[in-house]
Amino acid sequence: MTYLDLITGVRTWEFSPFTLFATKLAIEVPQVQVESSIVLAGVLLSLVAIYFASKIGGELSNALGLPAVLGELVGGVVVGVSALHLLVFANGDVTSSDSLIMTFLQATTGLSAEAAPATFDALSEVITILSELGVIILLFEIGLESNLKELLKVGSQAAIVACVGVVVPFVAGTAGLMMIFNVPAIPAVFAGAALTATSIGITSKVLSELSQLTSREGQIILGAAVIDDVLGIIVLAVVASLAKTGEIDVTNVVYLIVGAAAFLLGSILLGKFFNSGFLWATGVLKTRGGLVIPAFIFAFLMSYVGIALHLEAILGAFAAGLVLDETDRRKELEELVKPVADLFVPIFFVVVGARTDLNVLNPAIPANRDGLIIAAFLIAVAIIGKLVTGWAVFGQPGINRLAIGIGMIPRGEVGLVFASIGTASGALSPALNAAIIMMVILTTFLAPPLLRFVFPQDAALTETVTSE
Amino acid sequence: MTYLDLITGVRTWEFSPFTLFATKLAIEVPQVQVESSIVLAGVLLSLVAIYFASKIGGELSNALGLPAVLGELVGGVVVGVSALHLLVFANGDVTSSDSLIMTFLQATTGLSAEAAPATFDALSEVITILSELGVIILLFEIGLESNLKELLKVGSQAAIVACVGVVVPFVAGTAGLMMIFNVPAIPAVFAGAALTATSIGITSKVLSELSQLTSREGQIILGAAVIDDVLGIIVLAVVASLAKTGEIDVTNVVYLIVGAAAFLLGSILLGKFFNSGFLWATGVLKTRGGLVIPAFIFAFLMSYVGIALHLEAILGAFAAGLVLDETDRRKELEELVKPVADLFVPIFFVVVGARTDLNVLNPAIPANRDGLIIAAFLIAVAIIGKLVTGWAVFGQPGINRLAIGIGMIPRGEVGLVFASIGTASGALSPALNAAIIMMVILTTFLAPPLLRFVFPQDAALTETVTSE
Repeated sequence: MTYLDLITGVRTWEFSPFTLFATKLAIEVPQVQVESSIVLAGVLLSLVAIYFASKIGGELSNALGLPAVLGELVGGVVVGVSALHLLVFANGDVTSSDSLIMTFLQATTGLSAEAAPATFDALSEVITILSELGVIILLFEIGLESNLKELLKVGSQAAIVACVGVVVPFVAGTAGLMMIFNVPAIPAVFAGAALTATSIGITSKVLSELSQLTSREGQIILGAAVIDDVLGIIVLAVVASLAKTGEIDVTNVVYLIVGAAAFLLGSILLGKFFNSGFLWATGVLKTRGGLVIPAFIFAFLMSYVGIALHLEAILGAFAAGLVLDETDRRKELEELVKPVADLFVPIFFVVVGARTDLNVLNPAIPANRDGLIIAAFLIAVAIIGKLVTGWAVFGQPGINRLAIGIGMIPRGEVGLVFASIGTASGALSPALNAAIIMMVILTTFLAPPLLRFVFPQDAALTETVTSE
Repeated sequence: MTYLDLITGVRTWEFSPFTLFATKLAIEVPQVQVESSIVLAGVLLSLVAIYFASKIGGELSNALGLPAVLGELVGGVVVGVSALHLLVFANGDVTSSDSLIMTFLQATTGLSAEAAPATFDALSEVITILSELGVIILLFEIGLESNLKELLKVGSQAAIVACVGVVVPFVAGTAGLMMIFNVPAIPAVFAGAALTATSIGITSKVLSELSQLTSREGQIILGAAVIDDVLGIIVLAVVASLAKTGEIDVTNVVYLIVGAAAFLLGSILLGKFFNSGFLWATGVLKTRGGLVIPAFIFAFLMSYVGIALHLEAILGAFAAGLVLDETDRRKELEELVKPVADLFVPIFFVVVGARTDLNVLNPAIPANRDGLIIAAFLIAVAIIGKLVTGWAVFGQPGINRLAIGIGMIPRGEVGLVFASIGTASGALSPALNAAIIMMVILTTFLAPPLLRFVFPQDAALTETVTSE
């Protein structure tokens, strides 16, 4: 590394306090030549691509009478690994030369070919974390928009919907694969498990866009999706230990159940306490951000607790939103969270779309052809297994059972995790793996338009009710 | 890596779409075991620490009648490398075992000791980028609050203030070091150059807090700081090529000057065009974020152009804010940018504080003792050299010349860059390097309270004027 290289690089970001450290790093550990300013340039370009994709996709989708989030997902697919390669992420198969933004950075910022892989890793990591902050902020906002008391009122219905929605697809999927397709027990259990959990992010965003979050159906779907999320974590732990040792790790499962129960009940019971602490803090603070900073401290802390309990960050963020929903300053807080969510949430949906590799749907690839028949079966089970949950609801006359069932359909990211763990353990064949990914893609992209059509006549009415 | 390890790790983030990729990565490239959920947990904890530090520091500072940003910087020092070690950044000397947050993550999330260094690198990278986005959003907001026409009115005064503020400290510093301290020419030139540029971030934030951004003094300081920034980039290029080859790389210097002029003039001249495009876009968009997303697309694109022209991201962000300031929807946009800035900007200031290593001020370390005498000289030149700029202003009767001089004092990050490049090239002795860092720390932390005291009587008045 010549001295001029150093200067040329540093010149572009010389007023940054981080130069001191990055320069040191570049000199002492020459193999790691990641320059903050070039990563920053990549992050800025990626965000511009994400925002363009989300707005163009969202607006087109909205103009067609479909939820904007569907357009954001499709916009993500267009800029992602399936098409334009603007927004791709470092992994074993994808390197920096596959990324148009990395190519562009090399052309415009003097990024060297040697430094490109490490820069690409850093860029991928930053965009990944930004998109995870996006779904955390989404669930925080959904929590703020929801009402804890209303949610608890439909608690038993939500629990039944969640349990039926886990048991039916799991049993039907596993049994069908074993009996119809002669799949061995372990891979069949894995594929069955991949059919269980609902994507809380996609469902809640569509409900919010349709102004259905506070409807009875919306409340049941949201509650069931949350319980489903926890059940999914437990199912994964059971299936994984079964695949590994042939036995179920009971301690681990008990720990997860106790942890989840303590977390959700604890947040609800201690909510009043948190709330008065929050109100006290916002009352004391006189400088800028006196309301929004304590709110995000709470949301981020709860998200961290979710991860530390081996649950999920988004469960913590949702609980934080539910608790703060009870404060007197809720309306004011919602107004402040809105622009933050507007900037962060699209990152999540576009990234989900960008990571979706549509090549698994290509019948020209032999492994996909084998998978297509299994996929057709899995998709049928995935849809029917969740549709029936609507008819498990009791004591709610006149409820839109079809809407509840459809609300539970999107598998989103969840199924991908099962597929990846199954493949990594060697339990899943490439065909079964491709079939699971096809099932995830179709349920994820089908649910938003379907939800739109089962909630058509209420939309205008509910909007007026909730905006009171 | 056992299968159970994989499950245990994955269980904590299994509903994330990124698991698929991260899991693949962990299996195919076992030496890189960075788990997104653990990096995310670290980011969440770091943000909580940053927000606590910024609010506690900011509120205490405000209660003492000082600018909140001073408290944020000091809060950063308290949580940073000088004291609590909560917020530290990976470099050659600092490893993951020096970070309290990393230790805590290992205790609470099942992060292994082997995966800790790579996780720490990723965490440092993400927080660094978030803080850089923080200063970008700060300058975008400052641009929105500023008025281009008013700024152009004081353009010639600002240019003179900037030139005097570069020439006087440079000449006095270089000559003094050579004559009084017998420092050789090259290191003296480096140290003199480190005295030139003003920290636009710190100065503009203090002015904004004192409601002085739109005062005549504030406009001149802001304009001069921007010009100073560009001059600083040119000085660095000249000094660095001088140190390297003994000659000045004229092509490079001409490129920088032409690029900077084209960028600033281009933004101003094409402003109307951008503006009508922006208004058209915000008028067309019907979905959420229809105003804030186009604004940030513009801000991030301009920031990228700043980097690509070998200038700075913050110059682009400031120009974007200035241009959008002219739109009819400016007030509305300002309201939306505010909570975003409230969340991002403190990250920048706390990180600047956290990276400041106060050990260079410790006289018990021999190298510091040698540096202390030179530091005293540099600090005197740094303060006097900028104070005189106020008296260079012409045709502005009754202007607060002292306030202008003080507004130009903070060197912030800029001086650190000169010091790091000088040290890396071998031109600077450890004592001279420590002296420059002391000068930067003192000017940065002194300017906010001093500015507060030279603008006392106007504060209330100007606040009323600007809030009209």
